[in-house]
Amino acid sequence: MSEACNSCSAAGTCTTESCSTEPKLTDAQKASHIDKVIAVMSGKGGVGKSSVTSMLAVSLMRQGYKVGILDADITGPSIPKIFGVTGRAGVSKTGILASKSRDGIKVMSLNLMIETEDDPVILRGPLITQIVNQFYTEVIWGDLDYLLIDMPPGTGDVPITVFQSLPINGVVMVTSPQALANMVVRKAIKMVRNYEPPIYGMIENMAYVECPDCKKRIEIFGRPKGEEESKRNSIPFLGELPIDPALAELSDAGKVEDYQSPAFDQIAKRLAEQIRTNIGKNLA
Amino acid sequence: MSEACNSCSAAGTCTTESCSTEPKLTDAQKASHIDKVIAVMSGKGGVGKSSVTSMLAVSLMRQGYKVGILDADITGPSIPKIFGVTGRAGVSKTGILASKSRDGIKVMSLNLMIETEDDPVILRGPLITQIVNQFYTEVIWGDLDYLLIDMPPGTGDVPITVFQSLPINGVVMVTSPQALANMVVRKAIKMVRNYEPPIYGMIENMAYVECPDCKKRIEIFGRPKGEEESKRNSIPFLGELPIDPALAELSDAGKVEDYQSPAFDQIAKRLAEQIRTNIGKNLA
Repeated sequence: MSEACNSCSAAGTCTTESCSTEPKLTDAQKASHIDKVIAVMSGKGGVGKSSVTSMLAVSLMRQGYKVGILDADITGPSIPKIFGVTGRAGVSKTGILASKSRDGIKVMSLNLMIETEDDPVILRGPLITQIVNQFYTEVIWGDLDYLLIDMPPGTGDVPITVFQSLPINGVVMVTSPQALANMVVRKAIKMVRNYEPPIYGMIENMAYVECPDCKKRIEIFGRPKGEEESKRNSIPFLGELPIDPALAELSDAGKVEDYQSPAFDQIAKRLAEQIRTNIGKNLA
Repeated sequence: MSEACNSCSAAGTCTTESCSTEPKLTDAQKASHIDKVIAVMSGKGGVGKSSVTSMLAVSLMRQGYKVGILDADITGPSIPKIFGVTGRAGVSKTGILASKSRDGIKVMSLNLMIETEDDPVILRGPLITQIVNQFYTEVIWGDLDYLLIDMPPGTGDVPITVFQSLPINGVVMVTSPQALANMVVRKAIKMVRNYEPPIYGMIENMAYVECPDCKKRIEIFGRPKGEEESKRNSIPFLGELPIDPALAELSDAGKVEDYQSPAFDQIAKRLAEQIRTNIGKNLA
């Protein structure tokens, strides 16, 4: 996609042929205006993409922005559970209705489309990517300042489709201190660089655990190397986050909106600065 | 696949039409004899499938078995790094040569096919599953008692292909204490039950961290619930594992074969018992 597509609400449904003509929007797209689309990615599974996506959404919402989350992890969706959003998504003549969290964050996830939250989604790539596309084009997102995309692990079908078809403004990378994780995250960084969106920066999650008794900082996955890795990949380092049992507990209870994290507030500030810096710019 | 396929070395390359005729084996399959194929799965990313696969391989090797690992996580391969296996896989007229770890575990992974370990593999499902199939049919595994398959996260293309095309004898499920992880793991369990292999049992990884100073047991992802989850899903509970910084360090250094874990030795014993119990049996 060209940079011009970023401001075109037809992106995702257009073709090269249709580009010079009137863009064909779905009814859901006509009923939506999304200012910025940000992908939260890692390449590696289980480093906390969904947690970071959720904390980022909550942080932006607290700053007064209208926020939505598109859960693109179709076979392993976490977002509804983290926000305590249950029940099936509604449908109107115009499109699929995004569900709302307690505090008003809009959410779309495959787990809002199935009967029981632990029913498996046994689908191959073409159907999975079609669902991700429809979550963008057929969901009535309404007016959003930010739509965050919680990406699945890997550099396969879903990331390829997201970068080829959706108007992504930028990417947030999540890593953990393991050299193994950093290797896989570098794969994801190289993948993003095949496309156009800038990488706003890297967050190092699970950097340490604080012992609740003696307050020792335990580096369970080895010495944090987020800053070093960010430099190595020439992307801004946004900060490190500990593993916080309180976050796991609130996420399991569907109450992530009650979570307070001074460390994440700092990260969100740095990210906001990067988003401002990158407006209209393409670092790829 | 029918149960009879489990003992047929043509499984993975056969068709319904060819089944009643002489099985067509590749040269690599003719040069291999694999006794048992075990998939290590989770559904959720980052709960330690690759660590568990590696520890299981080392444990079986120490008991005198011949072991191989097929790294089916094509876009996020960890196995070569964990075992310190570098360089490109060799090729002969007969097929692709499995690489060998220091202590003799055979390994095949996409990271043994690319120039640089952090080059991304940006491929859609059909190509990814073709690679997984070829890792079974075109690799000269030689004589193996156990071939372990390190599965990628999710219930998409690769798990579908593995269960449809490879002669899997049984599955080991890996989970972590987060309710979120358990939800996704239940999806994977339900998926496996659509196919034939029995689930040998569940391992709860990342159950706690021990403070190196005050020895407090810190349950960073909440109260372990592996035993409860195993009962809920009617599968044997194999045991819990802590997060051990020593394992992360050895894995990052490619020296997992130096790792000693009494907790895992117990798990391996229980698993061996389950494998014995399930010989010729189909719990699905």
